[in-house]
Amino acid sequence: MISFAIVGHLARTDGGFSINDLPGSGGRMDVLCRCVNTSLFLSHDLRRDVDCYLILCGPPAGPKTVKFSGELVRSLSPDERSAAALIKKVIDTPCGTEFREAAQGVFIRKGGLERLLSERRFAVLDEKGADVRACADLPDGFILSDHLNFTAQEEDLLHNCPRYSVGPRCLHADHTITVLHNELDRRKC
Amino acid sequence: MISFAIVGHLARTDGGFSINDLPGSGGRMDVLCRCVNTSLFLSHDLRRDVDCYLILCGPPAGPKTVKFSGELVRSLSPDERSAAALIKKVIDTPCGTEFREAAQGVFIRKGGLERLLSERRFAVLDEKGADVRACADLPDGFILSDHLNFTAQEEDLLHNCPRYSVGPRCLHADHTITVLHNELDRRKC
Repeated sequence: MISFAIVGHLARTDGGFSINDLPGSGGRMDVLCRCVNTSLFLSHDLRRDVDCYLILCGPPAGPKTVKFSGELVRSLSPDERSAAALIKKVIDTPCGTEFREAAQGVFIRKGGLERLLSERRFAVLDEKGADVRACADLPDGFILSDHLNFTAQEEDLLHNCPRYSVGPRCLHADHTITVLHNELDRRKC
Repeated sequence: MISFAIVGHLARTDGGFSINDLPGSGGRMDVLCRCVNTSLFLSHDLRRDVDCYLILCGPPAGPKTVKFSGELVRSLSPDERSAAALIKKVIDTPCGTEFREAAQGVFIRKGGLERLLSERRFAVLDEKGADVRACADLPDGFILSDHLNFTAQEEDLLHNCPRYSVGPRCLHADHTITVLHNELDRRKC
């Protein structure tokens, strides 16, 4: 099982955003939707061994975490609106601090990065990290930030995590996931 | 200069599609919009040395070719709707068989794959091609198909093109572009 977690610093935490304006009203929800796409999609197939966690930190009710299970999710298409529609569907579902399935294969709970880090080990994708191609072994959980850098508080939480880079250029989070999948695919196949 | 060309087999060739339904009314225009994204975007920057050609083959007026110039384009954001809005803006601009700039850095002309292949050399991205990592030299022009395979007629046009693969799994066109950029970035930097 491979896990990706993406921190959406401004991502809206209730349904008060428009599917027609994900960058603005969604607090760059478009970035997170593209990360769902690159985490889970193969050509004409889904990566069933991948979970994608979206850590939504924006107003008004953050943080919340949405989990897309590659094994269980249904009704997901590759376009941004499809992932956004599922997020919008689950985001207002009453939930506590344990994951609740609010759409097929899409789960929600209260809590954010600190909770997730207490449960499993993650590495950080960071342009200053070790080149994934040069590493003999790679972890199976990766955290990325959206269009903004990690905050000082997040960096404190992440300070013990190993750091990896996917290459010489600074990429969008969703592109980084694609490159990392390619490296993992090559090692598995 | 690096060029990507993506064949959109069903992609609408007039403005009669909805930005709110790119997969359906746009004839999988969402695929092409994501290819514009992965061709041109770096984190907080654009790849100024890349051109992205969208070969629109759908109804009612195909084929037409839209060219996004990484050097010249303005008003482009990474979300699918942003690229789609530019396509919708230029697609009904009266044009002949030469490129006409119909929005800043976005050009349109009549004609499709055959015309493009007559002008410059392209390689085909194909899961059965040579692994890009194993090739001493890589070309600077690549053609991909959208969610559908190349037609028999297109394969005839492409039969002399070299073929490259980016890895062991069959990926979406936009993901393939991301992986290829990573390989090219590593060779340049």
